[in-house]
Amino acid sequence: MIDIFAKHAALRTAYEGLTAVSPRNPFEVVIERPLSATVGLIEGRETLLFGTNNYLGLSQSTRAVEAAVETARTMGVGTTGSRIANGTFGLHQRLEKRLASFFGRKHCMVFSTGYQANLGTISALVNKDDVLLLDADSHASIYDGAKLSGAQVIRFRHNDPVDLEKRLARLKDHPGAKLIIAEGIYSMTGNVAPLDKFVDIKTRHGAYLMADEAHSFGVLGENGRGVAEMQGCEDGIDFIVGTFSKSLGTVGGYCITDHDGVDLMRLCSRPYMFTASLPPEIIAATLAALDDMEARPELRVKLQENAARLHAGLKAAGLQTGEHVSPVVAVTLENIPQAVGFWNALLENGVYVNLSLPPATPDNRPLLRCSVMAAHSAEEIDKATAVFKAVAEHFHA
Amino acid sequence: MIDIFAKHAALRTAYEGLTAVSPRNPFEVVIERPLSATVGLIEGRETLLFGTNNYLGLSQSTRAVEAAVETARTMGVGTTGSRIANGTFGLHQRLEKRLASFFGRKHCMVFSTGYQANLGTISALVNKDDVLLLDADSHASIYDGAKLSGAQVIRFRHNDPVDLEKRLARLKDHPGAKLIIAEGIYSMTGNVAPLDKFVDIKTRHGAYLMADEAHSFGVLGENGRGVAEMQGCEDGIDFIVGTFSKSLGTVGGYCITDHDGVDLMRLCSRPYMFTASLPPEIIAATLAALDDMEARPELRVKLQENAARLHAGLKAAGLQTGEHVSPVVAVTLENIPQAVGFWNALLENGVYVNLSLPPATPDNRPLLRCSVMAAHSAEEIDKATAVFKAVAEHFHA
Repeated sequence: MIDIFAKHAALRTAYEGLTAVSPRNPFEVVIERPLSATVGLIEGRETLLFGTNNYLGLSQSTRAVEAAVETARTMGVGTTGSRIANGTFGLHQRLEKRLASFFGRKHCMVFSTGYQANLGTISALVNKDDVLLLDADSHASIYDGAKLSGAQVIRFRHNDPVDLEKRLARLKDHPGAKLIIAEGIYSMTGNVAPLDKFVDIKTRHGAYLMADEAHSFGVLGENGRGVAEMQGCEDGIDFIVGTFSKSLGTVGGYCITDHDGVDLMRLCSRPYMFTASLPPEIIAATLAALDDMEARPELRVKLQENAARLHAGLKAAGLQTGEHVSPVVAVTLENIPQAVGFWNALLENGVYVNLSLPPATPDNRPLLRCSVMAAHSAEEIDKATAVFKAVAEHFHA
Repeated sequence: MIDIFAKHAALRTAYEGLTAVSPRNPFEVVIERPLSATVGLIEGRETLLFGTNNYLGLSQSTRAVEAAVETARTMGVGTTGSRIANGTFGLHQRLEKRLASFFGRKHCMVFSTGYQANLGTISALVNKDDVLLLDADSHASIYDGAKLSGAQVIRFRHNDPVDLEKRLARLKDHPGAKLIIAEGIYSMTGNVAPLDKFVDIKTRHGAYLMADEAHSFGVLGENGRGVAEMQGCEDGIDFIVGTFSKSLGTVGGYCITDHDGVDLMRLCSRPYMFTASLPPEIIAATLAALDDMEARPELRVKLQENAARLHAGLKAAGLQTGEHVSPVVAVTLENIPQAVGFWNALLENGVYVNLSLPPATPDNRPLLRCSVMAAHSAEEIDKATAVFKAVAEHFHA
């Protein structure tokens, strides 16, 4: 009998190589419990969290917590049904209307996870007769949605409008629909997409454009509507996809559009139809977090200040970061042993960041992904950069 | 410019045909709010819920609600991270250990939805060099997991061991791994799989067997471990997949196994890695619901009594149901207009069930899927069957 796990032999070797040099598995860090938005208990130590997606700190929003508490008590802890059966409570519709109105659009569909929002939107919009044009650095959920759709996939160079246009031009006579997909902020590097340029291209070539604003929603734009708002090109975005599990601090995803055809997606999008809907207390917490986000624009101002402070601090420590100031700051290192050692030393000195290793990284060099929150104090940021500096000196990074 | 929604023209026509004959869209029913496990407010009316997956009524478990409340207050409303980054709290590990121990197995992985548990397990276990043998009536999440995996898919006749064995025999010389997938209870019909016979077959043919016990977990078997426990064949099941959104009343999914190779799934299963983990209050509610389920075996006894009562009541009303007594009772009708009229009349008379239309139904005839809960009183069941009887007389069903 063949071993069904034999196919992962190379992964096993890589994994054993990693755990041989690393005192702990970097992908199995346990936060015993969060002590606040910015501090978690890890290995018994109070650890500064600089590797989350909790940009506005709203996972700890009192308003969201109390909405969850009240709703769990009045409605229970789950719906036990899909949106097309018994899983649509009044709350789900309220959240959809609220989000559509936040974006100034007609329609919103809420999905049970952000992953399923990408799978469900992409697989319902395109099929084998169509073409997807994906930024080469797209998130796994976009690639998985593409696979599920069966559409032809063409990758264009990361954030490169010229390359996108060249590839679209070659499809001039293709009879199918063309859907371009880009993210607002890229999660690993903090890079911002030139959505305004993509809008111009999609208009000239008769394509559709979907923007995944997962990391930019609540973060960029005067009202927090993301990169498209910041770049003044919202009208050109056909489909906005996003998540509740970053700036809103809960879990779930959404698709927003003005296209009326989206009502059919509720009857053909399998990742929407064949899954239990989000529990009412999560919906209520998300609504409350959205209220909080709108009522406190100063959180976004603070986030940008903190991003600038972290970015400047890491640069001053001599580390290699991107030029662009963003709540995600990627520190590039030279090789895996150095990155693994660096990451462990940070954690042992009370700073948690995300370790990202090739081949998952953009240019095949390891990254330490740092992210900042509105909730971080200046002192916390300075402490983290001081630890980074000390560790960098030790590792000659 | 081509209309990206043009591909759904046939669905649009079917949908418009349906809404022309139905006073309301059967797939957009809104429960304004649940009043108890068994009653919801629909269109302003108190409506008996006979179309949920809340088999043990635990979505309204006080223990689960209070665990969610306490945890939201101490830990917040979300993790904002994936399990391989900042999204593993101590609670996630506790739930995994607890579930593994409940099943008497070594390993458990928790996923953010049941849908993603199937996608994540199947796509990590098999690839293009392998073969999946799927029951023809498998859930959409199994088919989508199969598509994502790239494995060759062979469907065998629903619940038919002879057909499965015939197809496996033909694969004798196939060099890849063979994975058979069956569900415990099928969600639409209540049919129970002959897992014991599948175990015998998989052993003789050197295949692996995965059982999706989504609808049978907490429902069948002396301890609620599902169909495999009931049929005494647990040792032969390689992978058990299931969900929290049915008998446990929350949301999420899991994969349980004794195979040590599963640790690699945490590093290669994309639907596990690239999604935010479940919020702490959901994990805490799930742990508490599991406690509740174990502490109250009488819920399972009551569920079986209620299943028998509903089944007998519908049969006595002259309706066409399956022979097998199960918490899911499917009433088969002749044609779509009759089914749509019947379903609307039930709802207008205060009984909610699920409407299932071809081509989604097993033998291309429409179904009214009724499900029963431990929380239903005998009076509620009798009231529902009386409404069914009156409506059936009107529709000559």
